[in-house]
This record gives sequence, C-alpha cells and structure tokens, in this order.
Amino acid sequence: MPKISERGELMPPSPIRKLTPFANAAKASGMTVYHLNIGQPDIETPQAVLDAVKHTDLKILAYSPSEGFQSYREALAQYYHRNNIRVTPEEIIITTGGSEAISFAMLSCLNPGDEIIIPEPFYANYNGFARVAGIKVVPIKSFIEDGFALPKIEDFELSITPKTKAIMICNPNNPTGYLYSKEELQTLRDLCLKHDLFLFSDEAYREFCYDGVKHTSVMSLEGLEKHAILLDTISKRYSACGARIGALVTHNKEVLETALKFAQARLSPPTLAQILGEAACKLPEDYFENVLEEYKNRRNLLVRRLQAMPNVICPNPKGAFYIIAKLPVKSSEDFCKWLLTSFSHNNATLMMAPASGFYSSPELGKSEVRLAYVLNEDSINAAMDCLEEALKVYRD
Amino acid sequence: MPKISERGELMPPSPIRKLTPFANAAKASGMTVYHLNIGQPDIETPQAVLDAVKHTDLKILAYSPSEGFQSYREALAQYYHRNNIRVTPEEIIITTGGSEAISFAMLSCLNPGDEIIIPEPFYANYNGFARVAGIKVVPIKSFIEDGFALPKIEDFELSITPKTKAIMICNPNNPTGYLYSKEELQTLRDLCLKHDLFLFSDEAYREFCYDGVKHTSVMSLEGLEKHAILLDTISKRYSACGARIGALVTHNKEVLETALKFAQARLSPPTLAQILGEAACKLPEDYFENVLEEYKNRRNLLVRRLQAMPNVICPNPKGAFYIIAKLPVKSSEDFCKWLLTSFSHNNATLMMAPASGFYSSPELGKSEVRLAYVLNEDSINAAMDCLEEALKVYRD
Repeated sequence: MPKISERGELMPPSPIRKLTPFANAAKASGMTVYHLNIGQPDIETPQAVLDAVKHTDLKILAYSPSEGFQSYREALAQYYHRNNIRVTPEEIIITTGGSEAISFAMLSCLNPGDEIIIPEPFYANYNGFARVAGIKVVPIKSFIEDGFALPKIEDFELSITPKTKAIMICNPNNPTGYLYSKEELQTLRDLCLKHDLFLFSDEAYREFCYDGVKHTSVMSLEGLEKHAILLDTISKRYSACGARIGALVTHNKEVLETALKFAQARLSPPTLAQILGEAACKLPEDYFENVLEEYKNRRNLLVRRLQAMPNVICPNPKGAFYIIAKLPVKSSEDFCKWLLTSFSHNNATLMMAPASGFYSSPELGKSEVRLAYVLNEDSINAAMDCLEEALKVYRD
Repeated sequence: MPKISERGELMPPSPIRKLTPFANAAKASGMTVYHLNIGQPDIETPQAVLDAVKHTDLKILAYSPSEGFQSYREALAQYYHRNNIRVTPEEIIITTGGSEAISFAMLSCLNPGDEIIIPEPFYANYNGFARVAGIKVVPIKSFIEDGFALPKIEDFELSITPKTKAIMICNPNNPTGYLYSKEELQTLRDLCLKHDLFLFSDEAYREFCYDGVKHTSVMSLEGLEKHAILLDTISKRYSACGARIGALVTHNKEVLETALKFAQARLSPPTLAQILGEAACKLPEDYFENVLEEYKNRRNLLVRRLQAMPNVICPNPKGAFYIIAKLPVKSSEDFCKWLLTSFSHNNATLMMAPASGFYSSPELGKSEVRLAYVLNEDSINAAMDCLEEALKVYRD
C-alpha cells in the first residue's frame, strides 16, 4: 500500500479540529453552543453585493483572466485609493481568497529551505502555507502583558540569518487584535531595507480599527516599494468569507510577473465571486460605519466581561475582531474540551480556540484562548455567563 | 532590492502567453480571431444551474466546510454512482477547480524530490503544480502515429526509480483527445500494484466520449482501491469553467485525511459555485446527449478539414474536445505567431496552441499544434478556411 508524503504527515491540522466533534455532539444533544472559536462573522453580507450575482446575465460561466477581471481590478484600485493605498490595477492580482495570496507570495519570493520571520502568536494557517512552500517559519514572541505589541527590533535582528527572505505581519492582527502603529511599521521598514527582506502584510482586517486609531498599510511606507507585498481578502470586510476572493498587491513588477505564473497554472479565480467583489467596491462610504459601531460595542462588552472575571488577563485590542485572553487554567485545550463535554449553564456552553495552536512552541500559550467577537451582544453575554460560571467550577 | 525565488523563475509560463498580445492586437485592428487555442467551451452553462445561484436565499456568504458542503458531496456521490464509480460522500473532497485537486494529490502523496511519471504530451499546467510541490515530472513519449495511445509498459518500467511515487494520466486526454481503453488501464493497474505506485487520473472530460466508446474510470479498477485517485472538475462537464469547483476522490482514507489538512489550510472552496455544482448534479439524464452530439459533429468536421489539407497529420480522437495535428511547418510556434501578426483571410485568422508547450523536451512537438473544438461548426469551417489558405502561402 503506497504511503502518503512526509510533508502530508507534518502538515499541521486545524487548531480546532479536535474540538469540533465534541461541539457537534453537544449541539446534537440539544445544547446551545456559542461559537467564539472562528472568525466567521454573523453580520449579513450586504444585499446589494449578493444582488450583483443574482442579477448577472452571463450565459457562460467562463474562466476570467488569471489575474482577475480588469473591471474588478480597476474598482479595487479605486477602493485602495480611498484607503490611502496608491496602486494601479496592474499592480493587483486577484486570488482565490487571502489564502492563495499568501501562498503566491511565499512561492514567488522564497525558495524551499528559506526562512520567514513572523511574530507569534500568529494565524495558524501560515504554518500550512509555509509547509506547502517548503519554507521555515521563524517565530518571534510577542507578549500578552503589552497587548502583543511588535517585538523588539533586536529580537528580529537576532533571528535574521542568510536564509531569511521575508518578514510577515498581520495588521490588525489575527489572533491578537493588535493594531501596529505607524512607528512600529516604520521600524520594520528600516529593518527590511537594511537586510533587503520582503515585508508581507496580511491586511484582511484593515477596516476593523477602533477608538479612532487609523490603519497604516505597508503599501504607504515610503522607500519600501520593492519590498512591500500586501495580502488581502474581501472575506471579513464584507462578511463574504465563502466568496474566496482576495488579492496580492505590490509595486514590485518582478513579483507580479512571478505570481502571475502561479496564477496562470490554476487558470482563474472564481468568476461569480469576482462579480460580487466588484459590486462591494461600490458600496456607499458609510457602509462600514454601522458595522464598525457594532463590532466596537461587542469588543467593549467582551473585554469588560473578561476583565471582570478573577485571574483572567485580557488586553483591550484596537483592531480585527479577536481577543486573546489568559485564563486561570493549566491547559486551555483541556478546558475548552471540558466546556463542550462536561459543562453546561442554562443548557448552553461556548467554544473557543485554544491559543496554543497559534504558537510554534508547544509550551507557549497553554493557558490562553482566542475569542472571536462575531456574535451579537446577547450571545456574547450569554457565552460570558457560561465562561464565568465554568471558571468557578473547573478544576484542572 | 530583494530577489524573487528561483522556483518562481523556473515556473513555466502559460504556453500561449507569448501569443496572447498578438491575438489582442489583431482583434484591436478589427480582425476576427477564431480561438481554437483554449478549452473554454462556447456551450452555454445550463440555465437551471445558473438559476440555482440566482435563487439562493443565503444572507451570509459564509465559509463552507473545508471538504465542501455535505449536501453537495452527497449529490456528487450519486452522480458518480450513475457513472459506475462507487464512492461515498466521505470519499470526496471538494476542491477549488480541478487544479486544486491535482495540487492536493501531489502534495499529499509525494515529497519534494519524488518523481511522477506522465505520458507526454500532457496538460502543461501539470508542470506548474509539480513545480509548486517540488516534484519531478518524468515524461514518457506517446506518438501521433498511433493517435497518442498509452506508451508501452516497458517504457514505464524503464522510467521507474526508487523516487517514483505515482503515475498520472488524463482520460480522455487533454491535449491529445485520446481515450484510454479498459485494457490499457488494466495494464497500468498491474504496473501500479507491482511497484506500489499511486495512479492519479484526471477525468475532467469523462462525458466527452464519442463513437459509442465507454469511459473507464480508475475508480472502477478492481484491486486499485488504495492506489487510485480521481481528480475531477465541473468546468468542462457543465461549461462552468469559471465556477472553480472540482473534487479529489479516493477510497484511500489516509490520502483523504491528508488532503483534508491541505484543504483546511485554505479554509473552504467557493460557496456560491458549490450551490451551482449541486444543482448540476440534478440535471436531467439527457442533458449530455445534445451536448455530445454537438461536440461529435464539431470533431468530425475539424478532423475532416484537417485531414483534407496536404501534409497535415491528424488522428481522429475518441474523447475530450482537443486534437493535436502535425503541420508541414518547422516551428508551430513561429507559424502560430505569424497567423496572428502577418496573415488574414476574409479579415480573419485563427489562434492555436503550439504543442511544444505540452512536451517536456524542447525538441518535441515542434511541428504540432493543439486545436480545441469549442466553437460552432460555422466558426470551425471559417477557421479551417484560414488555416488551409495560410498553409498554402506560409514559408518557414
């Protein structure tokens, strides 16, 4: 019997994979399970955006160009302009979700065996894309005590080797919610220029910035034109995770030409969802105001509830829709499983993502969980009632 | 300035990439260009299938499960049953186009440096997916003189090394149109069992079999349950290339579990297009009859016209919608370019794919072109008028 590949064996499974069967069993038994474990927003996809697909009169669902429809790239360039990112349509390659943009960047810029530095905790799937590309992720620890701010530049310097080709950030950050300041980004820029490294920036949560703080894109950093690669998606922005439409954006022509070759191999991004993405670029300017207000209220509520629980440490992040909290438990993995298998409060419980899945070293983040505030305030309150009660009765 | 990766440099560009600007220029000058160069059918996507998307009442375009919607996998299992392929929904992973199914199979079954044997000429993008996976394609030549039948088993035996992990076929074949017989597949089965190799079968064109010959899937070969991996797509079957929906299908549980990890890393296949794919499974049984009749007539016409031209060699393939023809020219690449830049007949010309892009060795297929009969009979006749005239006046 033929064997699967070693790389397949080493491919990390989803951090919540082990918990999912328990959540399903709890639901099958009639319990309510509040899902704070995944970034699937409950906000409705804008109707005008869904309608664009419904009203299309295409007769043949044909391939689009490999780089995406020209009309969509033009609309997207205008969207970026409104967000202080000056790019032309030719500097955009439409991808199948942000996932593919990350893959294309890794494949285009790094060889097998090369290294990419990423502050941890980080989005677990970066490990999977790195595994596919055969590249090594070099993590640099950030700390809950300072809200997961950018690690010291000295820490980066210490990790740079001749194999280092890129630094990758997610801004605002999944899983920490941390929003990097312009100053932090400028120090990263100087570092990348000094060592001639690419700077990949996953800006999936660009719009989700609270407390009046503005987002800074790596694309607006002067002098970094050849080094900065923006990785984007419409998934969170328009509550359209299932569209699978993202983009790789850069001023670097050589990277664009190379990424296009990977894009041509897979023929084209999804046609229907590009129609949807193009319509989303034309949403009224105030669309995000209501959405942001909603998310801000949820964050405030979630942080308030968490901080009110004894021995729970929880920063107040300024972006995205995630929070990492440190709980008074030895193993958040065991605790999360226990919540789904052995606990209920008002016939309900909650599912969270154990944070260890977002760290490279198995000993890190063991007491931490990631919570996504993608549910309405009533549900968040009910979920926090469960958590509060659970922490009272749980014994490691 | 940071450099792109060597693998990016080595990534093969699309075979028709060089020609596309010339085709665009010809069209811009007012000429008609008949596109026989790409497998983008002109047949309309079934209205009922497009309507399924238009009539969906989803409010949130959410992620689907990484392996695809359960309801779609069930409908697809039933479709396979109707085609003598006995699989359960759990043996199907929905992918983003056939492209991703091919990638997942390569990544799951082969390590970097491993080898996969593929009869050539073969679909050029296999090279791209192999480059991403870091695996080596070992071609085995098939010949236009016998219609590109399966190469001799001795040729396979000679190419097998300790690094060989899989054999890959496309059946019916793109680019040759050759339909492998049950006997040919059985010899391949015996070979795979003898050397414990995976057998990947790209069956994108399953329905497109002519002259009453039946298609045999690798999934129906007895004894090959652990070795056979079916790679599929709805692109050609329902004229839905832009949907980007395919599938990896196998009885091998270990491969399914491994492929699922790669699927989880990219989160999910496109949601809207899965709705479309599920509706397509419910098309009436006679849907393919008209489509097949149309393609058969086109093939007959194209073969008749080509065989009537002096010194043109052209088999009469039994499947898919491609033909490889050998022309009395030294370089089909130069000829195809000349057709777009220096020739016109009734203010029209044609675009074909130089076949060298489907061979591994640069010296092979130099006089050959691939033609896709994805245009109606009037257009095929007009295109063949152009080709006939062009061959009269062209001088190498």
